Amino acid sequence: MRTAAVIGTGLIGTSVALALTRRGVTVYLDDADTTAAATAEAMGAGSMAAPESPVELAVLAVPPAHIGSVLARVQGRGLAHAYTDVASVKARPHHEIQSAGADPAGYIGGHPLAGGERSGPLAASADLFEGRLWVLTPSAHTERLVLNRALELVSLCSGVPVIMDTVAHDRAVALTSHAPHLIATIMAARLENAADESVRVSGQGLRDVIRIAAGDPSLWRDILDANADAVADVLDTYAADLGGAVTALRALGSADETRRKQAGADLDDLLRRGNRGMHAWCGNRARRPPVFCRCP
Amino acid sequence: MRTAAVIGTGLIGTSVALALTRRGVTVYLDDADTTAAATAEAMGAGSMAAPESPVELAVLAVPPAHIGSVLARVQGRGLAHAYTDVASVKARPHHEIQSAGADPAGYIGGHPLAGGERSGPLAASADLFEGRLWVLTPSAHTERLVLNRALELVSLCSGVPVIMDTVAHDRAVALTSHAPHLIATIMAARLENAADESVRVSGQGLRDVIRIAAGDPSLWRDILDANADAVADVLDTYAADLGGAVTALRALGSADETRRKQAGADLDDLLRRGNRGMHAWCGNRARRPPVFCRCP
Repeated sequence: MRTAAVIGTGLIGTSVALALTRRGVTVYLDDADTTAAATAEAMGAGSMAAPESPVELAVLAVPPAHIGSVLARVQGRGLAHAYTDVASVKARPHHEIQSAGADPAGYIGGHPLAGGERSGPLAASADLFEGRLWVLTPSAHTERLVLNRALELVSLCSGVPVIMDTVAHDRAVALTSHAPHLIATIMAARLENAADESVRVSGQGLRDVIRIAAGDPSLWRDILDANADAVADVLDTYAADLGGAVTALRALGSADETRRKQAGADLDDLLRRGNRGMHAWCGNRARRPPVFCRCP
Repeated sequence: MRTAAVIGTGLIGTSVALALTRRGVTVYLDDADTTAAATAEAMGAGSMAAPESPVELAVLAVPPAHIGSVLARVQGRGLAHAYTDVASVKARPHHEIQSAGADPAGYIGGHPLAGGERSGPLAASADLFEGRLWVLTPSAHTERLVLNRALELVSLCSGVPVIMDTVAHDRAVALTSHAPHLIATIMAARLENAADESVRVSGQGLRDVIRIAAGDPSLWRDILDANADAVADVLDTYAADLGGAVTALRALGSADETRRKQAGADLDDLLRRGNRGMHAWCGNRARRPPVFCRCP
């Protein structure tokens, strides 16, 4: 790859541009917010001067709801030979691309699992994707050349490519990212009006649990909107476990010993399931996490 | 302080012993599990040889349910002039001390906010408490000398002392530690039987959210048992927000535009409350957390 375009110079777009520039690719930058694009340019992520001929790959790093319309527009002016995006939902943008009249043959969905609660070009880094999974969701229409351009992009960004179906991707991220984000938000929200003394009495555990709640509300509303049913399905399963935990906790003070014992056993079962789930997650890592897990 | 005893040589007890030994205090170690005590001794945390005369302070680093009985026993044999514990619940042990026939004048409750999902003496470190809050819960009976010995302990461990009422402490940790622990457990539990492909698609956010679910189930069952109602009260508030989030997510696909708009506004409100709660937490820190929060 010698030339690329990055449309949308937030955290992810600017990080992609920095990674490509570092590997010698000439990168064209564009953003509806020209201050953001100028910031990315000043950081050495590429140039705002429009390319004279089509670039090899354009990366659409715009909110999920805009992918269809932006793709139709930039394809219309022949910006690139291949197109991908970086949104954390994949099924709805895929439908919207078709209804917006864009050409699905030239497009492949993409989602690098990096970023988090920071946003904007100033938080960007050429190393953001190093060792991180980068999901690609080719459709039946996607051309082989487009898939291979996206694989090259992932490689240039030092990511780990994985091919998935759009619906399976969206269900997976509902379970591992979107539903946990809402739960972290719910826990953080309870601290808003808590006494200072209470909030002060918190350790590392709480910091880690609520960290992601600092994410940009507008971006997260878009994400939840685009993956609402899959997220609601996961939340329903949490609600069932949560109801069970409350019932068990209330029963621990019961005068009836059988109820008390059952409640203790139920809590124990939940805590052990949590341990096993943690280890299931850990065992699936390419790189094992630090000391806290002693997985065999 | 020249002499101390640590009863219970798990993560916290051994870390206290290591910190005191480093500051020149002669530390006597004891644990029902002699292998754990021998491990702590081999790590240089102190000596298993029984002290010839009462030590200045004994630290009971035993599970919350055993504090009353252990205190009565060691006071009975005149182990120390003052006693404290390190359990993460305070009201129930305080009651149990009185019903076990121990002398409340010689005791002060304590809770260092450090530790986490690791356990056992091998995970211990003399630096574990550095800069961490260490709650002390004197009762009306607690002698001034005992309070001052506990303050000296916190200082020798480089902790930050804070005096609290037992009930306020237990409500605070229900909000900031015990309820979040159960929620992390519920989220982790859902990964146990999830497809490998789904579990693989997870970023840093999930790791942080579920990390504490790796904690020791037996210890956590004891903690939840000792603080059950306060934890259930917090979980009830989470359940209400969770129900609201599911309703909003399901309504996002509604044909009725008014419902759809209301649902979007409700989610937006929740996400913004989460942001503010995160900043309320951050603003209460002695040391600001890393880059992710841009609190003013």
